[in-house]
Amino acid sequence: MGSHFKGSKENKRDLVLVTGRAHPELAKAVAENLGIELLKTKIYDFANGEIYVHFQESVRGCDVFVLQTHVTPMNKAIMEQLIMVDALKRASAKSITVVCPFLGYSRQDKKSNGREPISARLIFDLFTAAGADRIMSIDLHSAQLQGFFDGPLDHLYAMPILTEYIKTRVDLDNVTIVSPDAGRIRVAEQWADRIKRDGANASPLAFIHKTRDITRPNVVKHGRVVGDVEGRDCVISDDLIDTAGTIAGAVSALWDAGAKSVIVAATHGVLSDPAKERLSECGATEVIVTDTLPIPEEKRFDNLTILSVAPLLAEAMKAVFEAGSVTSLINAKNL
Amino acid sequence: MGSHFKGSKENKRDLVLVTGRAHPELAKAVAENLGIELLKTKIYDFANGEIYVHFQESVRGCDVFVLQTHVTPMNKAIMEQLIMVDALKRASAKSITVVCPFLGYSRQDKKSNGREPISARLIFDLFTAAGADRIMSIDLHSAQLQGFFDGPLDHLYAMPILTEYIKTRVDLDNVTIVSPDAGRIRVAEQWADRIKRDGANASPLAFIHKTRDITRPNVVKHGRVVGDVEGRDCVISDDLIDTAGTIAGAVSALWDAGAKSVIVAATHGVLSDPAKERLSECGATEVIVTDTLPIPEEKRFDNLTILSVAPLLAEAMKAVFEAGSVTSLINAKNL
Amino acid sequence: MGSHFKGSKENKRDLVLVTGRAHPELAKAVAENLGIELLKTKIYDFANGEIYVHFQESVRGCDVFVLQTHVTPMNKAIMEQLIMVDALKRASAKSITVVCPFLGYSRQDKKSNGREPISARLIFDLFTAAGADRIMSIDLHSAQLQGFFDGPLDHLYAMPILTEYIKTRVDLDNVTIVSPDAGRIRVAEQWADRIKRDGANASPLAFIHKTRDITRPNVVKHGRVVGDVEGRDCVISDDLIDTAGTIAGAVSALWDAGAKSVIVAATHGVLSDPAKERLSECGATEVIVTDTLPIPEEKRFDNLTILSVAPLLAEAMKAVFEAGSVTSLINAKNL
Amino acid sequence: MGSHFKGSKENKRDLVLVTGRAHPELAKAVAENLGIELLKTKIYDFANGEIYVHFQESVRGCDVFVLQTHVTPMNKAIMEQLIMVDALKRASAKSITVVCPFLGYSRQDKKSNGREPISARLIFDLFTAAGADRIMSIDLHSAQLQGFFDGPLDHLYAMPILTEYIKTRVDLDNVTIVSPDAGRIRVAEQWADRIKRDGANASPLAFIHKTRDITRPNVVKHGRVVGDVEGRDCVISDDLIDTAGTIAGAVSALWDAGAKSVIVAATHGVLSDPAKERLSECGATEVIVTDTLPIPEEKRFDNLTILSVAPLLAEAMKAVFEAGSVTSLINAKNL
Amino acid sequence: MGSHFKGSKENKRDLVLVTGRAHPELAKAVAENLGIELLKTKIYDFANGEIYVHFQESVRGCDVFVLQTHVTPMNKAIMEQLIMVDALKRASAKSITVVCPFLGYSRQDKKSNGREPISARLIFDLFTAAGADRIMSIDLHSAQLQGFFDGPLDHLYAMPILTEYIKTRVDLDNVTIVSPDAGRIRVAEQWADRIKRDGANASPLAFIHKTRDITRPNVVKHGRVVGDVEGRDCVISDDLIDTAGTIAGAVSALWDAGAKSVIVAATHGVLSDPAKERLSECGATEVIVTDTLPIPEEKRFDNLTILSVAPLLAEAMKAVFEAGSVTSLINAKNL
Amino acid sequence: MGSHFKGSKENKRDLVLVTGRAHPELAKAVAENLGIELLKTKIYDFANGEIYVHFQESVRGCDVFVLQTHVTPMNKAIMEQLIMVDALKRASAKSITVVCPFLGYSRQDKKSNGREPISARLIFDLFTAAGADRIMSIDLHSAQLQGFFDGPLDHLYAMPILTEYIKTRVDLDNVTIVSPDAGRIRVAEQWADRIKRDGANASPLAFIHKTRDITRPNVVKHGRVVGDVEGRDCVISDDLIDTAGTIAGAVSALWDAGAKSVIVAATHGVLSDPAKERLSECGATEVIVTDTLPIPEEKRFDNLTILSVAPLLAEAMKAVFEAGSVTSLINAKNL
Repeated sequence: MGSHFKGSKENKRDLVLVTGRAHPELAKAVAENLGIELLKTKIYDFANGEIYVHFQESVRGCDVFVLQTHVTPMNKAIMEQLIMVDALKRASAKSITVVCPFLGYSRQDKKSNGREPISARLIFDLFTAAGADRIMSIDLHSAQLQGFFDGPLDHLYAMPILTEYIKTRVDLDNVTIVSPDAGRIRVAEQWADRIKRDGANASPLAFIHKTRDITRPNVVKHGRVVGDVEGRDCVISDDLIDTAGTIAGAVSALWDAGAKSVIVAATHGVLSDPAKERLSECGATEVIVTDTLPIPEEKRFDNLTILSVAPLLAEAMKAVFEAGSVTSLINAKNL
Repeated sequence: MGSHFKGSKENKRDLVLVTGRAHPELAKAVAENLGIELLKTKIYDFANGEIYVHFQESVRGCDVFVLQTHVTPMNKAIMEQLIMVDALKRASAKSITVVCPFLGYSRQDKKSNGREPISARLIFDLFTAAGADRIMSIDLHSAQLQGFFDGPLDHLYAMPILTEYIKTRVDLDNVTIVSPDAGRIRVAEQWADRIKRDGANASPLAFIHKTRDITRPNVVKHGRVVGDVEGRDCVISDDLIDTAGTIAGAVSALWDAGAKSVIVAATHGVLSDPAKERLSECGATEVIVTDTLPIPEEKRFDNLTILSVAPLLAEAMKAVFEAGSVTSLINAKNL
Repeated sequence: MGSHFKGSKENKRDLVLVTGRAHPELAKAVAENLGIELLKTKIYDFANGEIYVHFQESVRGCDVFVLQTHVTPMNKAIMEQLIMVDALKRASAKSITVVCPFLGYSRQDKKSNGREPISARLIFDLFTAAGADRIMSIDLHSAQLQGFFDGPLDHLYAMPILTEYIKTRVDLDNVTIVSPDAGRIRVAEQWADRIKRDGANASPLAFIHKTRDITRPNVVKHGRVVGDVEGRDCVISDDLIDTAGTIAGAVSALWDAGAKSVIVAATHGVLSDPAKERLSECGATEVIVTDTLPIPEEKRFDNLTILSVAPLLAEAMKAVFEAGSVTSLINAKNL
Repeated sequence: MGSHFKGSKENKRDLVLVTGRAHPELAKAVAENLGIELLKTKIYDFANGEIYVHFQESVRGCDVFVLQTHVTPMNKAIMEQLIMVDALKRASAKSITVVCPFLGYSRQDKKSNGREPISARLIFDLFTAAGADRIMSIDLHSAQLQGFFDGPLDHLYAMPILTEYIKTRVDLDNVTIVSPDAGRIRVAEQWADRIKRDGANASPLAFIHKTRDITRPNVVKHGRVVGDVEGRDCVISDDLIDTAGTIAGAVSALWDAGAKSVIVAATHGVLSDPAKERLSECGATEVIVTDTLPIPEEKRFDNLTILSVAPLLAEAMKAVFEAGSVTSLINAKNL
Repeated sequence: MGSHFKGSKENKRDLVLVTGRAHPELAKAVAENLGIELLKTKIYDFANGEIYVHFQESVRGCDVFVLQTHVTPMNKAIMEQLIMVDALKRASAKSITVVCPFLGYSRQDKKSNGREPISARLIFDLFTAAGADRIMSIDLHSAQLQGFFDGPLDHLYAMPILTEYIKTRVDLDNVTIVSPDAGRIRVAEQWADRIKRDGANASPLAFIHKTRDITRPNVVKHGRVVGDVEGRDCVISDDLIDTAGTIAGAVSALWDAGAKSVIVAATHGVLSDPAKERLSECGATEVIVTDTLPIPEEKRFDNLTILSVAPLLAEAMKAVFEAGSVTSLINAKNL
Repeated sequence: MGSHFKGSKENKRDLVLVTGRAHPELAKAVAENLGIELLKTKIYDFANGEIYVHFQESVRGCDVFVLQTHVTPMNKAIMEQLIMVDALKRASAKSITVVCPFLGYSRQDKKSNGREPISARLIFDLFTAAGADRIMSIDLHSAQLQGFFDGPLDHLYAMPILTEYIKTRVDLDNVTIVSPDAGRIRVAEQWADRIKRDGANASPLAFIHKTRDITRPNVVKHGRVVGDVEGRDCVISDDLIDTAGTIAGAVSALWDAGAKSVIVAATHGVLSDPAKERLSECGATEVIVTDTLPIPEEKRFDNLTILSVAPLLAEAMKAVFEAGSVTSLINAKNL
């Protein structure tokens, strides 16, 4: 007892991964990629729908990643994640990273009319209020969403997962990247820089005018193709597929325009009704999404391919935990 | 243009009432009591369950009350109210009062084990983050919940609505107030002070021991009645009825003990399955709740009576708006 | 002294307009539109560049609008406005509305690379820290910027000022609206809905591909026109003109493509060097901007037209002060 | 100087314990249990009662625990602790844990009437404002107080200290646990589960009705015993003893009811006047409290036993410091 | 019920004055100056020193001024005021102005050594945490304290009350203003500008070197007078008199230097022991303070004069309430 | 994968030093003292004066020091530092220390009149809003500025650098320390304690009355010397030299009073015009400042000496990083 202070202690830390009930398969896959097991957690609903959460192992002093993708029922998935964050804060977690592979409400990122909410900003504010220190998400709907959070946000980029796969599925000398509407041409440009023969120029682009001919605005025409697609392997790229109306129309338009094949690729497979019907009937050669959202059996169809973001998420978590750079995992060019 | 400042303007204000989709009937009834109409509001769900809100009339400079009771699906009801608050804040409402006749998660008001959330506190924090200035609620599960909010909270008291009605249904010289468990005896005492002949002493009390005889703890006995109920009109009082297991057990025990009649009364009719079955089969003479929560046709049964809190809410809103005292509307004694 | 409280006082309010040194002409014009005079204010620099501010009349209890457009030197203009807000807060202003006709740093609204700031969000955070209650601005660079502020933001819309004027300058049966790049086609659509014969269909659109043919991405070609412009009155629309490189290129391209006339129109005339040279030499028929930014004599040139936003600002301030709706002043469609 | 960054440094930390003047003996005992010495600190009062604090050794980067129990004069004890927290924050402590063995104002945890404070919530807010990161306390008056703090709160549980001792003082086959009023029966149940022969059933319970017979509410009767106590060793359990009026009445009632012996046990010995007189004269066989509050000589009496919480506090601090679980130290069942 | 909104209501407001127990006489005097009565308030201590507050009339929607001077026991006076603020916030006061005629801890406004608190800043932070919107105080120890609060602070100036009185007590052609130490010469200059024949030059100044001759620092000499005081009426001015050691020494030194009379004047009469003894024995002709602090009979002595700040406080409150300028009441020159 | 958690990781940290464009020479010197290189950073201005910042190496998990002295153009220097802090926060720096060798606006630390800002407080609030965890500065204008920041502030003390040098330049048996005005006598006392023969008494003091004779206030006299300076080596000390009017007057006054030599010494060489002219012409024997601000060639003159604070800053950063005490580097006595 001669010393004034307790001898210094070695400062070890732990990475902990917890998950809600929205997408346990993805959480398990991430944990496997990290070589760990998920923290034992008890979550259930009371009779009136209130959620109960209890972490069954200590998280004191740990860097905790709370994985929950915002699947339908959307509001329950979000609230469940908020409650998990509250419990972790009170349980003395050292840091809390909210991981939303698909972030709900991200399309409500501005007021289009007076007296609307900006729900995407609200979601970030709710996570801040609950106790989140950091956000991790994949392919946000608009790059400006990063400015809705007052803290570090790791914005991961699933495009390479999709493009690497697609390169094995098309004739790289005969492929055209197609934007489903004028607003997403810049993203399509990035795809075109990647889906090409190594060393070659970027692949050609095309885009679809959903509603009207931009040069003759009063003639509404569904799905006019701008660009050369005849006889070519076409790849339609988007950030998400919800009800698939736009996408299915684009596929039709491409077939009408003489495309040789039509691949549809998007990061987030929301696939709300009647997406399955539309996609399976539109004649797409292949539809490719990632597993940022769960895709249950009843939503699947023959030519649907699902690629996993689990390795991407695991790599990013490890980088955050070890204070490495995640720049190689994020979008080098602005979306 | 001779003056330096714009001439002062008369400072009129407006009270505005908006409602979510959880319980429009109650909102309409409150509006009618106030002699106004509800603000025109558009609310719907997107295909993946995201909620969209748009107020169709100006709220700039108004004192807005946002009525939403936390009905199942609980998390959607809460999130919808949060989104409405965000929209009102951005639309320059002068003040925003969140009105939750029934406040969700209020039973999760403490940690019973390590690594649990305190979800009730979280709910208040979320409303603060969204932009709420004030909370109004009825018969919170514990009085301490008032300390979970850093601002004014109007805690209304529905007991007089219930007790005035019950006084017309029982023999005031032969009534006993029954607490369904030991923890709510103090509330029962307040009922006993009101359900009595004017000028008479408080009515007698009884309570039910759900699980064990307190004086012989190792003998578990379901529903032992403590107190004199034989041949008497019994009134079981509680704050809410969820699945009605406890209440139905209490009714049986009272019949077994020779009660003459058994009235069940509670503020919040949550009535989760199998409440209807239990309540309609337990033999209660009458079951009385308020309309803090909607009770759809399929949950109703023969001897169910529903009293309205709309006049109470309207009176409280008027008092808040006119800066009057609501003390007469709130609990004069601690719950 | 018989009463317990001091008798109620009539609650009159005042609207006060103060301005920094960035654009006093605009402030005076707004004041004139409101029929008031600017608050007497002393602002000067100390020898080392520190700014000193002193309001020479009381603002206690007033609704104060602090007008400062973010002109070069940008950082000084912003800091001056922040200091004014601090002084108003400490002088007991009832509410403080920060009015930035042109908001600095609004193009830095996202991280394009790791380890960049999101300076636009920072600007909002700084105004919040200083004490701003509300923001008013005109034609923000992206609609998502509204979500960077946690409070009411009045986003005004100068387009009608520009389009009403342009309608008097072109042959409405022979006009084409031109977007200077693919990313702003949606804005051009709104212009096309307004610049047309009353009752007629929207005017045709065109756009310029600055760097490459979108259908053959590897062939870089400066200023290819997409759409029909030959023999037509062309109107190039944008939110701001900074160094005018893109715009001047677009004008050339339109002349090359056989345009009959080329009008350039933008809300914000930043006009950094060498904008004057480029614009006066590019051959534009007329260049039209508003006075959201001051345009000193040395930046002006022959065919430059400057329209005033002072009436718009005055009308919006009056609506905010009187708690009216500003919806008619803001963008009814999403930018 | 070839490297870009300074070489990483080993990240050692220190636990530091500081104390105010409220209960230095407890602080010393905790330090001894930790095998350290208290940080050298200078604290004194200026002539007009302002407190001066100066820590005489560095706390930069340390995990500091600030021990102060809230003894009379209550407000000075609290303010002294707040000032210590402010000094630690400015001195770059890494984390600040406020340790209040007895938390003042914890009984003011709700509004019983309009226009009352919720002082317990205020105390938490003051510590947050001063810079506290975490709270540690023992046997809070109500479990809901945990929700008054927006961060980790370690709620320790002194019951085992008391019950282990009591097991050596009574005949475990003939003991009854007595709640001094109806509101604390649930706590008494937990005592009954611990004070018993190993492997045996929980001991019987009884409770005292202070003011009236619950089954005949109009007959006021001081201290009616409910349950079987005749010829038995009785243990009255409570969270705190303040002026001891209720407790002394309970002891009398137990003797009247034929108890063989009466032990009084509580965590917090507030012992305000005339507690000593009442307790020493009420005939209790033994009165047992812990040292969460100092009990000076003049407050002690013959059959008073004081057990120390120092080992409990030391163990909890070590667990917090080493990021271990404190679940074993906290209440496994809800109070 | 034809209208959509509730008809606008006239927006009357009330000024309410409440007081703690520190200085009720001053509060009554202020109320009288305002022509109102103090709000009925119940405040008492529990046995262990916890304070209980209950306002017995509604404050909803009122502008409330909470008067409490920070008298010994200092910490209790501060905590009592904090608790009052909490209660007012929860009772829906429209605005809360904390009025501290003497602000405790204001001398602890900087760190003189490492690991000290800045207690004056802490006091402001605590009032902010409790819910204060505005601070009003008199003659703060340093002008920089205004920067410790993030909001409006009305800094009143009691000097004119003192100087007007003194002008009736001295020969204005033969008076010298004396600073009791070098650090307060600038304040003395302001006094010299006021205590003079109308139209005449400012009166001469002198000051006392408490510890050493500034031109020969190694010769310690108690109370050397710098300036001409022989045969003159001397007025020693300071902001507060605590134990009066410095002041008494200054009086002696002035007598030694041949002063004709010596008046001592200060705003705040803290008068901690042994101030009464020192002041009554030092030979001062008259000692003048204000009633910012209560001066009970036992602290008074023959030649003590007490002037009231009640009219000043009442005038300032009225100006704040009516949104008038208080500039005429505050220090026109920097202290 | 047998374990539940990822194995603990060694917790290494890095110190990173970044600099803006205000004073790169000082930053390089500090880096050299630390044995590291500055982080690669890209900073430039857009055409309209908006600043762009990009850190080119990872800072994730690092303790980052952001060095920027507040040089003219003052507001740009401050805004650049704010933007750097925002970028670091979003890039996941572990802690951000804002290092301002000279802190801008520090003389605006109080309201001298109504309706002024307290700009110094604003500056601290802006850094807090941007994300600063800690401030480091040198010789703040007033000690109270430490209370303007709600967190750790390392206030370094450059006096020893100046006094050690001066001791080699004067006859220690014949030196007088001169305060340029009455308000800074206490600082001069500290210099007098250091500039002396070892073991000897403190050196004598003198001060200059800039505007009037304090003992005869109506006789304005520029630069009257109080104290004995005839035939002595005089050292004028101040915190900063801005336009040098006061200082040059003091030098003249000292020569007039028969000084043997006159050295001028100050921490911060602001040297706004016409400081160079005044200082080079006032006849000072030597003018000594530090390099807290850059002093470009055109501001320098013959007898100007510049001492470096780089070792002081490096030592303080190392102490902060290693959690050592910086007390030896800060002011042991109050300024």
